[in-house]
Amino acid sequence: MSIITLELHSNSAKPLYQQLYEHIKSEILLGKLPTNYKLPSIRQLSSHLECSRNTVKTAYQQLDAEGYIEARPRSGYYVCKIEGIVTIEKESSLSYKKEEKHQVYRYDFTYHGVDQESFPFSTWRKITKDVINEYDTELLQPGHPAGCPELRTSIADYLRTSRGVDCRPDQIIISSGTEYLLQILIQLFSENYVYAIENPGYEKINLIFRSNRVKYKAVPLDASGMQIKPLLESNANAAIVTPSHQFPSGTIMPADRRIQLINWANAEKSRYIIEDDYDGEFRYHGRPIPSLHSLDKGGKVIYIGAFSKSLAPTIRISYMVLPKRLMKLYFDKLSFYVCPVPVFEQKVLSRFIRDGYFERHLNRMRKIYREKRSNLVSCINKLLPAAKIKGANAGLHLILEVDNGMSEDELIESAKNMGTRVFGYSQYYFSEDKANKDKVPRLLLGFSSIRNEDIPKAVETLRKAWFIY
Amino acid sequence: MSIITLELHSNSAKPLYQQLYEHIKSEILLGKLPTNYKLPSIRQLSSHLECSRNTVKTAYQQLDAEGYIEARPRSGYYVCKIEGIVTIEKESSLSYKKEEKHQVYRYDFTYHGVDQESFPFSTWRKITKDVINEYDTELLQPGHPAGCPELRTSIADYLRTSRGVDCRPDQIIISSGTEYLLQILIQLFSENYVYAIENPGYEKINLIFRSNRVKYKAVPLDASGMQIKPLLESNANAAIVTPSHQFPSGTIMPADRRIQLINWANAEKSRYIIEDDYDGEFRYHGRPIPSLHSLDKGGKVIYIGAFSKSLAPTIRISYMVLPKRLMKLYFDKLSFYVCPVPVFEQKVLSRFIRDGYFERHLNRMRKIYREKRSNLVSCINKLLPAAKIKGANAGLHLILEVDNGMSEDELIESAKNMGTRVFGYSQYYFSEDKANKDKVPRLLLGFSSIRNEDIPKAVETLRKAWFIY
Repeated sequence: MSIITLELHSNSAKPLYQQLYEHIKSEILLGKLPTNYKLPSIRQLSSHLECSRNTVKTAYQQLDAEGYIEARPRSGYYVCKIEGIVTIEKESSLSYKKEEKHQVYRYDFTYHGVDQESFPFSTWRKITKDVINEYDTELLQPGHPAGCPELRTSIADYLRTSRGVDCRPDQIIISSGTEYLLQILIQLFSENYVYAIENPGYEKINLIFRSNRVKYKAVPLDASGMQIKPLLESNANAAIVTPSHQFPSGTIMPADRRIQLINWANAEKSRYIIEDDYDGEFRYHGRPIPSLHSLDKGGKVIYIGAFSKSLAPTIRISYMVLPKRLMKLYFDKLSFYVCPVPVFEQKVLSRFIRDGYFERHLNRMRKIYREKRSNLVSCINKLLPAAKIKGANAGLHLILEVDNGMSEDELIESAKNMGTRVFGYSQYYFSEDKANKDKVPRLLLGFSSIRNEDIPKAVETLRKAWFIY
Repeated sequence: MSIITLELHSNSAKPLYQQLYEHIKSEILLGKLPTNYKLPSIRQLSSHLECSRNTVKTAYQQLDAEGYIEARPRSGYYVCKIEGIVTIEKESSLSYKKEEKHQVYRYDFTYHGVDQESFPFSTWRKITKDVINEYDTELLQPGHPAGCPELRTSIADYLRTSRGVDCRPDQIIISSGTEYLLQILIQLFSENYVYAIENPGYEKINLIFRSNRVKYKAVPLDASGMQIKPLLESNANAAIVTPSHQFPSGTIMPADRRIQLINWANAEKSRYIIEDDYDGEFRYHGRPIPSLHSLDKGGKVIYIGAFSKSLAPTIRISYMVLPKRLMKLYFDKLSFYVCPVPVFEQKVLSRFIRDGYFERHLNRMRKIYREKRSNLVSCINKLLPAAKIKGANAGLHLILEVDNGMSEDELIESAKNMGTRVFGYSQYYFSEDKANKDKVPRLLLGFSSIRNEDIPKAVETLRKAWFIY
């Protein structure tokens, strides 16, 4: 009996029965109470520990339920056979990579992010409240695996009028970020598929394919975008392109290359084009360029869109338009995946589009970004006349060629020392081509997040960093 | 000149320049305007079409930007070389699997869903409004890739006090549903990993591994859960188990088997246990069973939790606790994935937990589910005395063995004819074992969604369907 002795603290936050339960459990795990050891009866132990019978009974029942002890009829409680835990070295306090400290720049030409001051917060707030007031249990029903029907309808309407994408709402799959949509496609297509990606291109695409262990080939660009001959030689089944405003070069893919790509896809049944229209809404002369999808008559283009550039990166809603035959495959194979976007968020966005706020917001943002862009372009022309601007006709970044004798790293570093962040172009080349650095260093400057009034000052720091020593 | 002739409709919603742009573009694509064809000058065409010069100029500029025509200095606009589109058969109106029509049952023993009437909607609504009022641009900042720090802190606190899981907030990764967490693990582990899954088990696990093309072995259960000998023979590196309330059998894994599993994992460096604690919050006698994670000292257990059972399936927030060495690997390899849950939703949930509402809600739900469960058990004992109940000590479903001479299919079908839905147990066996049907048919009855007052009537329909012919 002496073996079960502990001091019960009645003024502890832990109930007495739990203190007893934990004590006995630990004695069993440490082997101090051996297999088949008969525990004292409830009456004995309660008088020994000076506690109520209920305390002991509850502790025993918990231990019984968890399989540490068992009740044998008309005999009492016995310790079960429990293997000792084979201890291995206790997990060391491995220090893992801390979240990187955010370097704070005075002027940041990041290409992530949007103009935050312009987000229509009061409208968004109002719609959020309306949705939470009007719906209740409906928001608790499991949603459609491909996304809320009303959001898919709103997106289909928007795509038809604004991006030339002709699709039915039931061809749209809603998800959370391009990376999740690409993972759906990877699982939809055969495991032998080879993916052609643009080189240089968006760094994440590379990471997604690598970490999903699929074959991919980096296909070089020319002035029109992805080149057809190396694409053919890559034996790729699917090509991922950004025709509206290639990332990072800023090239708008001309009609001829678009049609060559579509012809490439039409030549083999298995081939598809994945059009990532990541900032296709923003063009600064004339109408936005219609999507590649709008030229496709054979169901060969998968269109991917998102709201991260047109609204905000935290609106984690993206979507893709699948050709009908892929949609059938999706429903057969993958509809067990639940749409990761909460129904609530989908309803808010759907109403935001349906009631015309999205269109208005886009028009407003086009104006704001047009101003920032022309401010940036004219500051560069004035203050950095030796630098060449490329890819500035659309999207939210431009490319600067700087031929002052400094290397790309030196350009970035000297700008950083002046408190200004710019991005090196060479990092967007994929492994095979990393060596193939441009002879004249190129830099990427995003202008969506930086404040318009800061642009002249920011370009002035670049002038000091690069042209006055 | 006659080649560019169309009627411009000034009362159309489409601007004149766009009508002209679309006409010329289609003529080029149809090959009616050949390569190097010189377009009429802006002045000529505007007078021919009786429209303003600006209309023609804007249309030409758009066509130029898209690469259909090009301006040659001091000469005019020419049609670019554009390959004809090689037409393939137009995508047929393939009919794809329509969303399955939802069969409506009078009484539904589904194991999906929760008791909707009990969701604390007014509190949730209030917190939603508070969050949207208090935050603004902060909600637009890109969040931490592993999830909002405050939500991870709230979850860590909850896990420590309620599930015996001792972890730091920075070991937690927030995602949207168990399927997304498993995909992270698949990408984190070597591609040669073999996964052991419970057989019978949750149907989705099978689908996730299959569609991600990884090796998995279905390991049979005994009365304590996953069996160790076949687990060893499977050469698995990771075992996915549901120790708190095995799905579908309802078994609570006893201490001895838990320790055997941990010893199995400790025996090889590569081995891990993935503990899916999908409804571990609900136990009907004594305290909830502590997690398997709470016994692990060597960093071998990955704990997965979700709010789909404890709050609502539409709260698409789940999380996992990674051992420190895996967390390091995650940050090195996979932190490019952005957390799919909107920051807004994370803040609402975090506050819901922090302010004690979650704990209160759980206590309330335990009471409600305990009542439903005991109502169901006593109705079965009274009305279906020949049926045997299993796995009813925890979770939100129980198993019924019905030995009346009918097959499983006949039992389900006859219940369906009475308007009541029950689930056949054999469907949860994975392929190799599908044949191995139980001799006595077993059915799965969930009781989370059905209304308490409907339970007696529902069981009465089962009596009529199964025991009175």
